[in-house]
Amino acid sequence: MSAVDQQLEDIQATIESEVPPDISVTEVKYEGPELVVYTRDPKKFARNGDLIRRLASQLRKRITVRPDPAVLTRPDTAREQIMDVIPDDAGVTDLDFHEDTGEVVIEASKPGMVIGRHGSTLRDITQESGWTPEVLRTPPLESATVSNVRNFLKQERDERRDILERVGRQIHREEMSDDEWVRITTLGCCREVGRAAFLLSTPETRILIDTGDKPGSDEVPYLQVPEALGAGAATIDAVVLTHAHLDHSALIPLLFKYGYDGPIYTTEPTRDLMGLLTLDYLDVASKEGRTPPYGSEMVREAIKHTIPLEYGDVTDIAPDVKLTLHNAGHILGSAVSHFHIGDGLYNVAFSGDIHYDDTRLFNGAVNDFPRVETLVLESTYGGRNDYQTDQEDAEKQLIDVINETYERGGKILIPAFAVGRSQEIMLVLEKAMREGKIPEMPVHLDGMILEATAIHTTYPEYLRDDLRDQIFHEDANPFLADAFNQIDGGEDERMDVAEDEQSIILSTSGMVTGGPIMSWLEHIGPDPKSTMVFVGYQAQGTLGRRIQNGWDEIPISNDGGRADRLTLKVDVETVDGFSGHADRQGLMDFVETMNPRPEKVLCVHGDERSTQELSSALYHEYNIRTFAPKNLETFRLI
Amino acid sequence: MSAVDQQLEDIQATIESEVPPDISVTEVKYEGPELVVYTRDPKKFARNGDLIRRLASQLRKRITVRPDPAVLTRPDTAREQIMDVIPDDAGVTDLDFHEDTGEVVIEASKPGMVIGRHGSTLRDITQESGWTPEVLRTPPLESATVSNVRNFLKQERDERRDILERVGRQIHREEMSDDEWVRITTLGCCREVGRAAFLLSTPETRILIDTGDKPGSDEVPYLQVPEALGAGAATIDAVVLTHAHLDHSALIPLLFKYGYDGPIYTTEPTRDLMGLLTLDYLDVASKEGRTPPYGSEMVREAIKHTIPLEYGDVTDIAPDVKLTLHNAGHILGSAVSHFHIGDGLYNVAFSGDIHYDDTRLFNGAVNDFPRVETLVLESTYGGRNDYQTDQEDAEKQLIDVINETYERGGKILIPAFAVGRSQEIMLVLEKAMREGKIPEMPVHLDGMILEATAIHTTYPEYLRDDLRDQIFHEDANPFLADAFNQIDGGEDERMDVAEDEQSIILSTSGMVTGGPIMSWLEHIGPDPKSTMVFVGYQAQGTLGRRIQNGWDEIPISNDGGRADRLTLKVDVETVDGFSGHADRQGLMDFVETMNPRPEKVLCVHGDERSTQELSSALYHEYNIRTFAPKNLETFRLI
Ligand SMILES: [Zn+2]
Ligand SMILES: [Zn+2]
Ligand SMILES: [Zn+2]
Ligand SMILES: [Zn+2]
Ligand SMILES: [Zn+2]
Repeated sequence: MSAVDQQLEDIQATIESEVPPDISVTEVKYEGPELVVYTRDPKKFARNGDLIRRLASQLRKRITVRPDPAVLTRPDTAREQIMDVIPDDAGVTDLDFHEDTGEVVIEASKPGMVIGRHGSTLRDITQESGWTPEVLRTPPLESATVSNVRNFLKQERDERRDILERVGRQIHREEMSDDEWVRITTLGCCREVGRAAFLLSTPETRILIDTGDKPGSDEVPYLQVPEALGAGAATIDAVVLTHAHLDHSALIPLLFKYGYDGPIYTTEPTRDLMGLLTLDYLDVASKEGRTPPYGSEMVREAIKHTIPLEYGDVTDIAPDVKLTLHNAGHILGSAVSHFHIGDGLYNVAFSGDIHYDDTRLFNGAVNDFPRVETLVLESTYGGRNDYQTDQEDAEKQLIDVINETYERGGKILIPAFAVGRSQEIMLVLEKAMREGKIPEMPVHLDGMILEATAIHTTYPEYLRDDLRDQIFHEDANPFLADAFNQIDGGEDERMDVAEDEQSIILSTSGMVTGGPIMSWLEHIGPDPKSTMVFVGYQAQGTLGRRIQNGWDEIPISNDGGRADRLTLKVDVETVDGFSGHADRQGLMDFVETMNPRPEKVLCVHGDERSTQELSSALYHEYNIRTFAPKNLETFRLI
Repeated sequence: MSAVDQQLEDIQATIESEVPPDISVTEVKYEGPELVVYTRDPKKFARNGDLIRRLASQLRKRITVRPDPAVLTRPDTAREQIMDVIPDDAGVTDLDFHEDTGEVVIEASKPGMVIGRHGSTLRDITQESGWTPEVLRTPPLESATVSNVRNFLKQERDERRDILERVGRQIHREEMSDDEWVRITTLGCCREVGRAAFLLSTPETRILIDTGDKPGSDEVPYLQVPEALGAGAATIDAVVLTHAHLDHSALIPLLFKYGYDGPIYTTEPTRDLMGLLTLDYLDVASKEGRTPPYGSEMVREAIKHTIPLEYGDVTDIAPDVKLTLHNAGHILGSAVSHFHIGDGLYNVAFSGDIHYDDTRLFNGAVNDFPRVETLVLESTYGGRNDYQTDQEDAEKQLIDVINETYERGGKILIPAFAVGRSQEIMLVLEKAMREGKIPEMPVHLDGMILEATAIHTTYPEYLRDDLRDQIFHEDANPFLADAFNQIDGGEDERMDVAEDEQSIILSTSGMVTGGPIMSWLEHIGPDPKSTMVFVGYQAQGTLGRRIQNGWDEIPISNDGGRADRLTLKVDVETVDGFSGHADRQGLMDFVETMNPRPEKVLCVHGDERSTQELSSALYHEYNIRTFAPKNLETFRLI
């Protein structure tokens, strides 16, 4: 008998000795980090409200109870019983019964009403029907991404359970080594922005954190060196994804092409956004005539292998590693990833990308942990002078620009990233319009903005407290405001909008490197009354940066495919302060107020100057041992 | 056709266009770093004295010319022709003909006379016989190790040629990567003394430098991590061995058990000493009831895969790496290993263990290089106060101790390491006796000392200039002095010596941890008139250290196997200054006078204090970027 089977047998014996004699335990198994307990008496289990919690704390495991398939009520009977329990206001849109595991997936507009106080309604559902409920939110804004991911996971449910069981057995395998050490290897993203990829390793376990591309470059992380995948993709135990931006996620699907077959730990919104962004990444590549490094089936593999975690859940991901994700304030689902290694041996936090202060969209990044000895910190704006306008001033500037443009009869064109910055600007515009600070006018959304917004509204728990409450309690979802109009009529609709009444246009791509913004440039660019407002970082070499710098002759390709030139007469303005990244002050504050202060900080995700200046400042201000690593280095932490 | 075959075909065409039309070229192939040219006209080739040199410089390769087997003179005819060419004084002891390669191995007491001025006699041999000569020195002192190694290599000549051809093709393979980086990974020997093992890697090539054990501990280098052998032993291109001490060499044979099948680059004496010391290491392990990590057949594998290099030879060992070994002054054959990477990209030197000043036995370590950006430096005596008595004072002290002991009628017992320290002391004693500074008396050698001495006399080129000249020209080999007597009569002879006239006894082990010294302790230990003199470092935890610290009750096991106690009455003295390691001053001098000064120094092979204090001193004195790495780290150099 394998060590894991022996362990499961012992656990089953413990559970049997703890539960009342009239409750049977037919099987226990691991599925990912969870322990699944099958019983012929699911209703009795549910009636003993405290039983599961008691077992979980005794076994120090997350526990799910499921009915033995032999005792299942028939779905049509169960459906009635369940609908009787759930209040009508919950807005149930779908019930999906899985007879192999006794689970019923309930999709509802108000999932909170399906759950009930402290899960009381869920327990009622099991008491009445014997089925184990799982709850999903019906997106308030229809999202193709969310529904594709959900349909795909439903269809692949059997294989997914196999994956989870295999991963579960891996997590709970016996520890083999007496050695104690913790190391970080840098595979990219050092003294540069892009191709994030780090390896956290112990004698037992190897964890890959992020695998991104490098925007504006074909450089990829050093995945082929022996300490990464050189020794075989199977030597990686787990992949952790901090957030969905392509410089962190673009090459995650590639890992599966290279033979990786293990779990990806990330938040549920990051999973969906990763699906959206990597598919778009493949699309852009093939439109630009490049060969994408992997096909869309690898994106599906990545989604199938994702084990979503909620902020704050402490999760076993290896015999000697517990992972906890915390809000990073950067984009939807972005996570500071905290690793607890050994039994109190060492703690490492990877910041991913962070925003320290609250924004309209998100709470500021969490920097409070039970313990952290080493912090791996992004340094995008870590340079000596990298201070940004604060949010309030930035909003005032944006409002002024809009009003001035409006008064002279022009339109406002805002290039914006689909994920994060667009939603932030939408919130600013909705509020300003509602409060009368800018005139009421249509706000057109072009490109993937509305789809990204729909994903945001699917996961209000990941948004800033008061925004979440707005969506939950007051039913006043600002993203559903009447002013917002999705451009879904293509070039015709754009032409109409351009000739129509005054309006605001938010369009991708954020750095004017392609996408519908190119078309808007042609429509709005020649109009001296209109204004083009940059609200995000424009990288070196992009058309956005050139326009920002005063270029007014723009190459465009006309319908015949011949190159042509467009003369810009539009007013060009820049409003900074809407960045998703902490500025120099925010990074310093993040470390200063961090609890506890780390002993070591590795400054990454910034150019050479930013990482070195931040590293030096943190050392001199807080007397922390700091490093500005290069790619391909390995640091021994303990 | 493979890239290497294409390359060889091109080279053959070049050679054919360079040599006179009456000289044929039947084949060219690689054997290790050398290019071997087969010809049907070996005599004509030899007559064109400058031809080979010209080809070598044009092709930038080391070239060996061999007769096509089809045109070989018969060995018995060739033997007469060869013996006619070689002067009688050369003292030829063996001729060994290899018909498959047309090589004749000539062993002679005076190999210089077989070679002739600038190789003129060698060329005469080929002109007369058509055979390609290879010359070996007949050991002046018979050495079982040297003759075993030579016999073994003779017997395995065919397989060895296969290995060399395979290695040669590997070295000259096409470069695959456009990337440029150089890294050092520490697998052991950091903040500790022992288990030396470093990995030098580029996008093309991975080179392992040393693989030692840790004396007094069962800790081994971290060979199993992915960046070492985790990705497969075959991912290592080459092993370089700095010197034969077990803390650098003990686990080299183990690499072959793990599947390594590539070359070991080191000096010829290091190869032989490695054979001696690793076989003894296995012997000691089994005597102490431990399971040796490998068998003696792995030692033979290591010897078979060794490609010996001479000091100063610049050798291609990979498409992008050239290796040059330089005298390190530490023990016979010890080498500072210099790596030139890329075409002028970067240079790294590994000091191995060094002695900076000249000793009686060796010239001081070489620290003059065309270029060096990074130095990996031993730090055994790198601590702030690690200054040693200078050699002259040390010799005076030793002479005083001997004279005092002699005057009171006692004997002198010196525990000493077989390799290095013993020969140094032998030279001091021989000179003192010859110059009348100490009385004439027998010097008994016990343990492996004489065998190690015999290996030294086989390679006088590796000894200090004047000692080498003594052995070469004056025929006044000090190691052959009459006073030296090998103890080969076992316990009976020891008893006789103990009861006999006054004498000096040099015996292993150097730290009194076993071997014949244990028996000498019983014979000499109880005699208050005699003196025990420590001339080498006594590690923590060894019996030698305890005696040095004043213990006078020693546990011994008597014949019946029962434990017994021995009371020491012998006078105990310590004379330092005979160390094979540079002291703090020597290490600082090595770096100060180094040409050029390196940009970075990694301080290794010393305890935590020594490496940090040396690192800090080098930084403050010479403004060099210094590091005291931990094990399992990777440094990016470029
Ligand atoms: Zn199903
Ligand atoms: Zn990001
Ligand atoms: Zn990023
Ligand atoms: Zn040594
Ligand atoms: Zn050593």
